[in-house]
Amino acid sequence: MKRDPKKWLFLKRTVRFGETDSAGVVHFLEGFKWCHESWEESLEKFGIVLHDIFPSTQINISQPDVALPVVSCEASYFQPLYVGDSINVELYPEKINDSSFILRFKFKKKGEEISHIKIKHVCINRITREKCSLSKPLDLWLEESNLFFNC
Amino acid sequence: MKRDPKKWLFLKRTVRFGETDSAGVVHFLEGFKWCHESWEESLEKFGIVLHDIFPSTQINISQPDVALPVVSCEASYFQPLYVGDSINVELYPEKINDSSFILRFKFKKKGEEISHIKIKHVCINRITREKCSLSKPLDLWLEESNLFFNC
Amino acid sequence: MKRDPKKWLFLKRTVRFGETDSAGVVHFLEGFKWCHESWEESLEKFGIVLHDIFPSTQINISQPDVALPVVSCEASYFQPLYVGDSINVELYPEKINDSSFILRFKFKKKGEEISHIKIKHVCINRITREKCSLSKPLDLWLEESNLFFNC
Amino acid sequence: MKRDPKKWLFLKRTVRFGETDSAGVVHFLEGFKWCHESWEESLEKFGIVLHDIFPSTQINISQPDVALPVVSCEASYFQPLYVGDSINVELYPEKINDSSFILRFKFKKKGEEISHIKIKHVCINRITREKCSLSKPLDLWLEESNLFFNC
Repeated sequence: MKRDPKKWLFLKRTVRFGETDSAGVVHFLEGFKWCHESWEESLEKFGIVLHDIFPSTQINISQPDVALPVVSCEASYFQPLYVGDSINVELYPEKINDSSFILRFKFKKKGEEISHIKIKHVCINRITREKCSLSKPLDLWLEESNLFFNC
Repeated sequence: MKRDPKKWLFLKRTVRFGETDSAGVVHFLEGFKWCHESWEESLEKFGIVLHDIFPSTQINISQPDVALPVVSCEASYFQPLYVGDSINVELYPEKINDSSFILRFKFKKKGEEISHIKIKHVCINRITREKCSLSKPLDLWLEESNLFFNC
Repeated sequence: MKRDPKKWLFLKRTVRFGETDSAGVVHFLEGFKWCHESWEESLEKFGIVLHDIFPSTQINISQPDVALPVVSCEASYFQPLYVGDSINVELYPEKINDSSFILRFKFKKKGEEISHIKIKHVCINRITREKCSLSKPLDLWLEESNLFFNC
Repeated sequence: MKRDPKKWLFLKRTVRFGETDSAGVVHFLEGFKWCHESWEESLEKFGIVLHDIFPSTQINISQPDVALPVVSCEASYFQPLYVGDSINVELYPEKINDSSFILRFKFKKKGEEISHIKIKHVCINRITREKCSLSKPLDLWLEESNLFFNC
């Protein structure tokens, strides 16, 4: 049976007080934080263990030898957000090639678009920083998520 | 029928990649961020609308004329946390007097205590910054949460 | 005598430990934080008092009735940064029209370009959130900074 | 000739817009961020290269095999801070034993005390996380800084 990608690509979060600034609304760079955190949540909901994807210093655990830095990103903001606002996060991943992918995010509040954000990641060896292939689980997540938007 | 305070006082969250530092573990001040965010989540689960508690600049919405700044806080850290770790957050609120309260937090990972954090808030007029009484909904949250630990 | 715009447009900062993540390098969204903070530093060096530009709740101080939210931004990252790295920040402001402007930032490490970031701000009434004219001091900062790149 | 410890223990910083929240003042946990960043600045002014103290993943550079996590901390806040406020940071380090030390911070605004913060660090092997001795340069920084308060 096919799984429904909406389960791991359509997420929610709530605006927290510490994310606002003294103009009374969410500070612009929090949107990028939400993207990365939503992506992590999506990977987990898909079934990926984050320890297998992101480097840490944990012992007794096999460490990934790759890192997934952001090489470019862009955001457009249409509406302000306030503390306590409930946000829908829609994530649209696209594989570019064997070592890079783009994540597109739409943030909505009560159905209205609040912000679009686009983030390009590349897969590199975490020490030499040379490009390398995406790991198997990440590749699978991209494939199954892509299918969703092609049918 | 009595509601169960564990529903709004026992929460969960997952360590995110951006919360770690280059020593490979969670950076110490993230614990304080988790406390404030967990408190907000607790208020919401209790039934409080955050717009009624925290100031913003939203129009067409009655603004609270009080703020709830932290006057003191302390933390002890027992174990490191890594990206992807699943954390249990236990919140133990205590009303001190008509205008102040203490929030105690226990963070646990697989049953083991990771960190204790204690935060004292005071209720003030947000412009004059003079002490004033806690709002009715916050007072109710404190009372119903306190009951839990006294029976 | 003409002042030299490099004094308020060419700045420096040092990478801090809390800005890194467990991949061992600076987390991508810190670049946007540096931009906003460098812009604030530039305004101060030009002679502007930040209280006159950015909203707060301070009493006995005339509050600006405008806010300057970011409406769009984009970044490209070319090289990783590590704790302790010393960065040169070059800021290139451009006035778009009476109510908006673009800030372009180049980050360099030992002369090598690390990152480009572009941020578009718009001036709005902080309550109604309708577009309005840039304040006199901000307009002056834009003009004198622009001159620098036109001669 | 004796160096003057005030040069590396008495520092300054300015409150940035992104450090405030929608109550219009600095969000409480920023104080802890300032402490860690001021400590790093102090080490640099003393003559220490941060790469030698804090772990990263930089190649062609000898990595420290120790980390310096915070094991406990506490803060008291006396006065609010607003965007643009200029702060004096006074740092009072105290060596506890061969593997741990306490950093006390006083934040002042126009001579008035704004906040006290105390942070205890311990030196551990970054992989096994067992206690170990402070590195030579850090030990020297503690000694020369301590002298200052004993004479």
